[in-house]
Amino acid sequence: APLHSADLADLLEALGEAHRAALLEALGPGLDPGALAELDEPVRDSVLESIDDAEIAAAAAELDTGDAAYPVEDMEDSARRRVLDAMPAGDRRLPEAALSYPEDSAGRPMLCGYVAAPAFRSVGQVIDRLRESGDLPDEFYEIFVVDPRHRPIGAVPLHRAMRSRRDAVVADIMRPDARPIPVDMDREEVAYRFEQYDLASAPAVGPDGRPVGQIAVDDAIDAIREEAEEDIHRMGGVTAEGDIHLGALGTARRRWAWLPVNLLAAALASLTVAMFADTIEQAVALAAPMPIVASMGGNAGAQTLTVAVRALATRELTAVNAARMVRKECAVASINGMLFAAAAGAGAALRFGDPLIGAAIGLAIVVDLPVAGASGMPIPLALARAGVDPAVSAGAPLTTVADAVGFFAFLALAKAIVL
Amino acid sequence: APLHSADLADLLEALGEAHRAALLEALGPGLDPGALAELDEPVRDSVLESIDDAEIAAAAAELDTGDAAYPVEDMEDSARRRVLDAMPAGDRRLPEAALSYPEDSAGRPMLCGYVAAPAFRSVGQVIDRLRESGDLPDEFYEIFVVDPRHRPIGAVPLHRAMRSRRDAVVADIMRPDARPIPVDMDREEVAYRFEQYDLASAPAVGPDGRPVGQIAVDDAIDAIREEAEEDIHRMGGVTAEGDIHLGALGTARRRWAWLPVNLLAAALASLTVAMFADTIEQAVALAAPMPIVASMGGNAGAQTLTVAVRALATRELTAVNAARMVRKECAVASINGMLFAAAAGAGAALRFGDPLIGAAIGLAIVVDLPVAGASGMPIPLALARAGVDPAVSAGAPLTTVADAVGFFAFLALAKAIVL
Repeated sequence: APLHSADLADLLEALGEAHRAALLEALGPGLDPGALAELDEPVRDSVLESIDDAEIAAAAAELDTGDAAYPVEDMEDSARRRVLDAMPAGDRRLPEAALSYPEDSAGRPMLCGYVAAPAFRSVGQVIDRLRESGDLPDEFYEIFVVDPRHRPIGAVPLHRAMRSRRDAVVADIMRPDARPIPVDMDREEVAYRFEQYDLASAPAVGPDGRPVGQIAVDDAIDAIREEAEEDIHRMGGVTAEGDIHLGALGTARRRWAWLPVNLLAAALASLTVAMFADTIEQAVALAAPMPIVASMGGNAGAQTLTVAVRALATRELTAVNAARMVRKECAVASINGMLFAAAAGAGAALRFGDPLIGAAIGLAIVVDLPVAGASGMPIPLALARAGVDPAVSAGAPLTTVADAVGFFAFLALAKAIVL
Repeated sequence: APLHSADLADLLEALGEAHRAALLEALGPGLDPGALAELDEPVRDSVLESIDDAEIAAAAAELDTGDAAYPVEDMEDSARRRVLDAMPAGDRRLPEAALSYPEDSAGRPMLCGYVAAPAFRSVGQVIDRLRESGDLPDEFYEIFVVDPRHRPIGAVPLHRAMRSRRDAVVADIMRPDARPIPVDMDREEVAYRFEQYDLASAPAVGPDGRPVGQIAVDDAIDAIREEAEEDIHRMGGVTAEGDIHLGALGTARRRWAWLPVNLLAAALASLTVAMFADTIEQAVALAAPMPIVASMGGNAGAQTLTVAVRALATRELTAVNAARMVRKECAVASINGMLFAAAAGAGAALRFGDPLIGAAIGLAIVVDLPVAGASGMPIPLALARAGVDPAVSAGAPLTTVADAVGFFAFLALAKAIVL
């Protein structure tokens, strides 16, 4: 089939178990190894189970160096050893190296071979050596320029090498910023650097500062997408890659970790309501509009929280502007609070035929929106400073604040005004 | 200052108005034009107001072709005309072309110059022409191969040209898939293609199929990040780029559009509660745990919705697997519903000293979680099919379902069991 590997991977992911097995059988050993690297983790695991070790080894050996670690990275140690041993020794070296770096670091699975040249060479010499060399990486965009101790000091983009005269000296045409990336750098930081500095490739360097491989832009794109994806999923209370391709039981297990936190938050907020049981007993009409206030506060808080979590991730929210941002969000929520207090209050007064209930709702919104809206900034900031991922953990405390303050403000005001 | 343009842009964004003005004055005409292209829209607008037209024109003329449209794209027509007229005629051509394409299309502001060669040339001839040409784009990764009618039929990555012998023919070493991108293609689709096919560059073609420019990977990275960012913000009820850099009033105005929808959703849900006024009057203890059920349902729904919205954006959710996914989500929410029904029911029975209230809560969760959880899949699917962005619009109907079903199930069950 003339499908691109990535499209074949998507097709395998979209099919149900039975159709997937049939397609794999029809493809047989003709399965494109590139598709293995593109699959989401749960689907890859299930595909690999249906292929024997020798075939996996053959597929891994055919993959680009940067991708060769994918098929084996989630295997049990013993299965991984069997597959690696079945690979030719030369092809085994790179996946083994990749697997020696921590997960989610620059070294795994991003590295591929690199091309380096000393600064004193001429462009013509470099090109001649490239032509003669039999062992070039599959793809590269730049020639890294190294000093005599083999540390990167710059890079010559290929287009610059091609447009220069053959006798031009590398040192004269190189981009003088090498931007080496330590091999254990977190993938999120790698993604940030490629994005921020428009890099096409960067040398990955070991602890001695010498290159051990190249990080290419297509791997950085994967990292950029996956990091953004991870944040979206975490904010929605979902963990990690491939949720959509897991079975129901596996998905349920991954998701239920998030629900007890929410149960606790909801229980805390409901305590506020319980405090006002006598008020509700005297005016049962208060029970219906009560969730409106909490919900408006929760939404204003979620707006601020979204902006704060993303701004932290993209480093637009820093110690420099944090105080200013909190003040601003408080102002924003106050403005919108007053606006919607009027609308919701008037609506409730009409609906419940009681202007006092309307007044209580309006005033409670005026209190809850600024509190919940402004809390969306300091809560993630404090969590981030404490080293906790705010995309995961800021939602529950924020909901608790918005609900508790909303319920309390409405019921206390209603007690004072309506009763 | 030896700051990278992107870092200078970040610094300008992080500073308050007063400090920003002071920094701009200190930089004077030394302001790096690249930073103008990197700024978020609201900050760019404020920076441009403090610079006169001639300086903006000089800055735009210095920028890479792909970025030159940025400084003028948000200006009033007359101001834009003044700036463009102040630019040298040669530098003006490319931003004018970019501005002729629709916003958020491939042509704007991504295009830069391209390099093309006919298929019959030898590598040596191509390289010689590159060296002789004075008018090459600032950056390029591939030489586009064109047929006699100048339509792209393939591409030679530069690394492949460099490692080939001078007498190798372009047609023999080219990658035979040209993957041309129509200049009016939506930016989201452009981002998808670069991600899916690991492209380093692609020819942007006009209606006649001939290249009008090159889309390079660094612009595609910006598009990938911005599209992901947009979805995150929309799901959190926030519109568009640069919210964090707007003043409080501007931010409030951008955000308040989202709140009436939520107000309506909350009001609809509260109608359900109003239906049971007599039930609550008879057992006021029901008012406190009531929001717990709705909140658990809302969270399970949000989990499904997050997965669905992202899977639609990344095309992992299609007509092929939609029915299977809805069934699966229903199963997931049922499993977690039963688990948390037990926990929440037992907790409520203890807290309120009434096992019947606990039973009502537990059973209501068993009803609400599968309904809300499963709704998170068809609601965004239906909205997407109707051409509405589900990231924006799916939240409110889902909350309404989760709340209304939650309130109804709990109060109806409590009426039957407790009273």
